[in-house]
Amino acid sequence: MTAEIIAIGSELLTPFHQDTNSLYLTDQLERLGIAVVQKTVVGDQPDRLSQAFADALKHADLVIGMGGLGPTADDRTREAVAGLLNRKLEHNAEVAALIEQRFRARGKRMPEVNLRQARVPEGADWLPNDNGTAPGLWLTHEEKKIILLLPGPPHELKAMFEEHCLPRLRHLAPKQAFASKVLKVVGLTESEVEELIGPIYREISNPETTVLAAPGQIEIHVRATGSDTAEALRRSEALAGRLESVLGEVVFSSGPENLEQVVGLYLMMRGATLAVAESCTGGLLGQRLTSVPGSSRYFLGGVVCYSDKLKTQLIGVPLSLIKRKGAVSAEVAESLAKGVRRRIRSALGLSITGIAGPEGGTPDKPVGTVFIALADARRVKSEKHRFLGDRERIRWQATQAALSLLRRKLHK
Amino acid sequence: MTAEIIAIGSELLTPFHQDTNSLYLTDQLERLGIAVVQKTVVGDQPDRLSQAFADALKHADLVIGMGGLGPTADDRTREAVAGLLNRKLEHNAEVAALIEQRFRARGKRMPEVNLRQARVPEGADWLPNDNGTAPGLWLTHEEKKIILLLPGPPHELKAMFEEHCLPRLRHLAPKQAFASKVLKVVGLTESEVEELIGPIYREISNPETTVLAAPGQIEIHVRATGSDTAEALRRSEALAGRLESVLGEVVFSSGPENLEQVVGLYLMMRGATLAVAESCTGGLLGQRLTSVPGSSRYFLGGVVCYSDKLKTQLIGVPLSLIKRKGAVSAEVAESLAKGVRRRIRSALGLSITGIAGPEGGTPDKPVGTVFIALADARRVKSEKHRFLGDRERIRWQATQAALSLLRRKLHK
Repeated sequence: MTAEIIAIGSELLTPFHQDTNSLYLTDQLERLGIAVVQKTVVGDQPDRLSQAFADALKHADLVIGMGGLGPTADDRTREAVAGLLNRKLEHNAEVAALIEQRFRARGKRMPEVNLRQARVPEGADWLPNDNGTAPGLWLTHEEKKIILLLPGPPHELKAMFEEHCLPRLRHLAPKQAFASKVLKVVGLTESEVEELIGPIYREISNPETTVLAAPGQIEIHVRATGSDTAEALRRSEALAGRLESVLGEVVFSSGPENLEQVVGLYLMMRGATLAVAESCTGGLLGQRLTSVPGSSRYFLGGVVCYSDKLKTQLIGVPLSLIKRKGAVSAEVAESLAKGVRRRIRSALGLSITGIAGPEGGTPDKPVGTVFIALADARRVKSEKHRFLGDRERIRWQATQAALSLLRRKLHK
Repeated sequence: MTAEIIAIGSELLTPFHQDTNSLYLTDQLERLGIAVVQKTVVGDQPDRLSQAFADALKHADLVIGMGGLGPTADDRTREAVAGLLNRKLEHNAEVAALIEQRFRARGKRMPEVNLRQARVPEGADWLPNDNGTAPGLWLTHEEKKIILLLPGPPHELKAMFEEHCLPRLRHLAPKQAFASKVLKVVGLTESEVEELIGPIYREISNPETTVLAAPGQIEIHVRATGSDTAEALRRSEALAGRLESVLGEVVFSSGPENLEQVVGLYLMMRGATLAVAESCTGGLLGQRLTSVPGSSRYFLGGVVCYSDKLKTQLIGVPLSLIKRKGAVSAEVAESLAKGVRRRIRSALGLSITGIAGPEGGTPDKPVGTVFIALADARRVKSEKHRFLGDRERIRWQATQAALSLLRRKLHK
């Protein structure tokens, strides 16, 4: 079974916007054993839209259109596809009621234009949208081709795909199964990872292994095929296990968890609480830790002491220490970790102080210099890092290093 | 003149890689007045490749293929296009000499496979590659269609395009120029924006207007053509001006700036300093404010008081107030804003307290209930919001609303 993905929207043909939904869908479809053979981006013009769907129906068994289901006049996917397949668009009272209810829940009146979203091509199934007003549409064409129309906003698309499309596609997908496993590594470079595991995975064609560098971490994707899921799973896990044993404790996750989730699990398991003090990351560390649902069980709070004065005022870092060693120093990082732990009365205190740039670097402490520290009741440990990249990347890597330091401590 | 861009490579159909060259090319082509009408990503299979070029020649006057010009067996763009146009591939001695010379300069012998790159379709012009071994190809089809084949690596593609394609395209491009403008709106829904400006922009085909919903904001893209850049600019600015005057102060930017940058500019202009107290957003508000280079000039710091106790301990919110009104209430939001302003000694204090979910909602205060408050020396103002979506979206929208409240105050 083959698929083509069509991203719809004139904005996606400008230099400013890019389709990213197709990466998610490709991943989901691959797991079902459905190969994506083409991706297309097309604007809102009805003739171009119809042409794109007509072409795609030649290439693929499953055509997924994303976007252009909104309420406004430039949302034309419904009309274009209905026209191409010679289907009438009919007002659907059930869909209209759901849209109206959504507005009512927010205390708003449904604007007239939103009724366009309640128009469903004859013979199509509509898919509920729990996160927006645009319903999805599932059409069968000439008995064997499927056209799936999904809303463009990523969170709407994902939820709808997982709830209302995956189960149906699973029935239709071929009997070849895929399984993949991702090992996530922090603290090694891509080439260091490659040197360690290359000699093992390069000999093996099933599973296929790909090493990918993401900011602040390396991901190893292991993807196996088999005649059923159990076989594919066995293959991917066997190789992932071998790679993991070679890599050792730098692997922080062999599942979907990210670093903040792994750290959260450890904190919960140990019944430990955490407070953070951050300077150059400006709140990013706290934001990442609290992005995990239920994080209030272990994360008490934090202080963003962006100015030097605040480091003294809010955390009690001695001003003389800042003067002597500089705000970006191992000593100040340690004082921040100890101080925030004491002030907030948590079991652990984690701190970051550094220079994210683009200004503020010196020959001695260039942009990208970051100190992190972790304190418990008995001791404090700090690390010096030097990150490359722009402000955003440096800040991300700084939080990645801080979370990694915390993970290693909790892991012991 | 219209263009279609085809990105070639099976890796671009995996969840891990994405074509980014097309953003660069779109920008370059737009400046020439050449509209990109479709973008396609296709794998290395010869039949799919030919099909993609055949389809593109139907849509566009100029078809640009990127990638698949390497020396290995899975680089098949040359063969596919030559086959499609019925042209023989001929060994080109001049190209071969250049490739060999490139290897020699690095003290290496040219591997035999690289001779594939010296094969040029009959009647094609080849374009020198100053940064790699793959030459580009320029083909004219049926006297009026142009096919341009460029190497995939971005630095090779850019240099080749600018040096060897731009000058030729400039001659061929129409005398038409493009200009675009983006208005960013916060505080209205997509359909509310549509109701306000639809009657104006729907009458006008040049500029073309598109309304886009992004999390927590709406973008209005206005794109005009004209016989020269000045004319196109005049048109886009005239319409953008009309739309802006109808929308009023909800427009926070008519340029590339995001909300945190706009707020930063205002704070800088007024010489005001800011401190934040955030609960459910866990640091996101501080992180966004400090993502702007130079934000240390106005952002002093913040407190993430995730637990109730910390709201009292770090900011001085009376425990009795939290008990009486609840941590998620207008009164606590106001007390947080006033408190953090006082503690951190900033001109302004901004606060967020809410329920980001998935747990913690009550019938009275469901998930998504968020209070924000802004305090200056004389008064404090709070707002109640009810956001929909998952944890991540609720948190994002909460910071968007807080920044928006701050912007409106500074705007006055």
